[in-house]
Amino acid sequence: MVAAREKFLHERLGDGEWREENMERLKGRMVVLGSSATHSSTKKAAKILGLRFETIPVDGVDGYALSGVKLKTYLVRLRERELEPFFLTATMGTTDTCAVDDFEGISEVLKAYTQDTNRDVWVHVDAAHAGAALICPEVRGKIRANVFEDLHSFDTNMNKWMLINLDASCLFIKDRNWLTCAFSVNQAVYDNHHSEGGLVTDYREWQIPLSRRFRALKIWFVMRTYGVKGIREYIRKTIGLAEWFEELLKTREDLFETVAGPSFALVVFRLVGKVGQEGAAEDKLSEGNKLTRSLCDKANGSGKVWVTSTVLDGRYAIRFMTAVSTTEKKHIDMAFELFVKLAEEVQRAEV
Amino acid sequence: MVAAREKFLHERLGDGEWREENMERLKGRMVVLGSSATHSSTKKAAKILGLRFETIPVDGVDGYALSGVKLKTYLVRLRERELEPFFLTATMGTTDTCAVDDFEGISEVLKAYTQDTNRDVWVHVDAAHAGAALICPEVRGKIRANVFEDLHSFDTNMNKWMLINLDASCLFIKDRNWLTCAFSVNQAVYDNHHSEGGLVTDYREWQIPLSRRFRALKIWFVMRTYGVKGIREYIRKTIGLAEWFEELLKTREDLFETVAGPSFALVVFRLVGKVGQEGAAEDKLSEGNKLTRSLCDKANGSGKVWVTSTVLDGRYAIRFMTAVSTTEKKHIDMAFELFVKLAEEVQRAEV
Repeated sequence: MVAAREKFLHERLGDGEWREENMERLKGRMVVLGSSATHSSTKKAAKILGLRFETIPVDGVDGYALSGVKLKTYLVRLRERELEPFFLTATMGTTDTCAVDDFEGISEVLKAYTQDTNRDVWVHVDAAHAGAALICPEVRGKIRANVFEDLHSFDTNMNKWMLINLDASCLFIKDRNWLTCAFSVNQAVYDNHHSEGGLVTDYREWQIPLSRRFRALKIWFVMRTYGVKGIREYIRKTIGLAEWFEELLKTREDLFETVAGPSFALVVFRLVGKVGQEGAAEDKLSEGNKLTRSLCDKANGSGKVWVTSTVLDGRYAIRFMTAVSTTEKKHIDMAFELFVKLAEEVQRAEV
Repeated sequence: MVAAREKFLHERLGDGEWREENMERLKGRMVVLGSSATHSSTKKAAKILGLRFETIPVDGVDGYALSGVKLKTYLVRLRERELEPFFLTATMGTTDTCAVDDFEGISEVLKAYTQDTNRDVWVHVDAAHAGAALICPEVRGKIRANVFEDLHSFDTNMNKWMLINLDASCLFIKDRNWLTCAFSVNQAVYDNHHSEGGLVTDYREWQIPLSRRFRALKIWFVMRTYGVKGIREYIRKTIGLAEWFEELLKTREDLFETVAGPSFALVVFRLVGKVGQEGAAEDKLSEGNKLTRSLCDKANGSGKVWVTSTVLDGRYAIRFMTAVSTTEKKHIDMAFELFVKLAEEVQRAEV
């Protein structure tokens, strides 16, 4: 986002306009964009940089993902308000539901926007969790990952779903000059022949800290141990386990409903309320929320599974994630049986 | 710096003035301060945040450290220019010479400034390297560390001089509310009973990343292995080695001059030029620089020592650091003999 800000300021302020006064005024109009499903880190970065963050709302109708159409509508509104978007986080695998934004639609809308306004919006692809699945060709095709080439930056955390311990966040950037332009600060004591001769890449100019831990080794070990084949098998196995869990949920539609997914290795589901057909929709929602929260607490309290929760369109839901190297089919079966047992308890207590 | 910015904006903009327009105008006038000996990280942070950074120049006359008097003079100039300082980095152990800023003088000047202007300047103590020496009571007395209580934040990197591997940066902050105010961003998926009940400290609200590595364990091991006594002995030994090296330099004043120190475990020295007494000062400086640079390159080329260089008041100098756990007196003696041999070679080549 810092690199994007530098790029935007440089492109927007010609030499003549490059005065502090204009810059402060422009900064006040700059907007960072994300959808309501975008991870909080984008909002946090904007907050830290003192920049305006705006949320494009998405809901169940959108599959909790950002479409080109939604983005286009929002861009029009921003122009009416004389605001200038310069950065958008598009997500492969949102936190809540592991949804994938419409990269192709977003890219097309922004190309048209640039033609209209002569302004470029930096698109950062946040593939923190689901990026690991790009190792599988069928995933690349499905989400149209070829569009990434037209975008500006991409990040995936190998410590989430690629068998590596915290932390291992891999950033790819199309033009590193914007990064080094944003982060370069020289000090005499760091002078050395290697840097002066352009012989090395100084990562201190790519990041906030000066020093850098040697994270590459642990990644190398995993790559050498598993190989591409081994990692693909692992990724496909964990996706398969989520699909299996969803099949199990379907066998008990009297108890459960799938709210989102299976998407990659995540299924989001909730407990169906007991209010009969004649009950008001609002009562059903409220009862279902209460029961699902209770089920979530009981499940975690059992010490046998660990799940997190979220709220989607006002519906409290449980996030069931199978992207763990030690999880096998027998664990999924055990977890499902546990959920059935606890769900029945919860519903009985309610009656 | 982000916390300081939030604090300043909240204190300066009353409810009535808290409008975007005023905020952007104020941001354009806000100034981050450091001395010319301050580590580049302060400048880098200001650059990232898009805030103005100003350097208070210090030189050999000041002992390369910031005094209260210099700060006072600079604050007057800033007021004349209608600029508003809100953050100052004061350093215990600068990068170049391991100098210590005058914390007592700085604190007094800023107290008077606050009384005059009703504005508070956040003072961050950068003790990245030398902070380790605070474990020794004699050091605390010497640098008047009791003044730290009146300041806003303090940071030391245990990975520099306290037997711990990269990274282990310890931040102390007087009022953590300014940090959490600056970094808090909530997302449903992180809701949990422990946070909601105020039962835990959520460090995600103290830092940029969401996740946090478990660095405490390696620190605990060092503490338990060495104990306070052991760490004090180690710190004192390394300081003693620097003092010993400086004594050796004094035995060859025909070859070397000490430019700064010994300060903690650092001696900064250079090679004396061969230009006679009748030579112009400028020629002497230039010749000394050339010889010292050559000595530095030869020393590092030998593979027997590793030193870095800096430039102080136009004088190229070598930084000789003894804060290494495996360095013993015999290594200092060996290094000195090497420097003498190479210095004589360099001078001979020059003649």
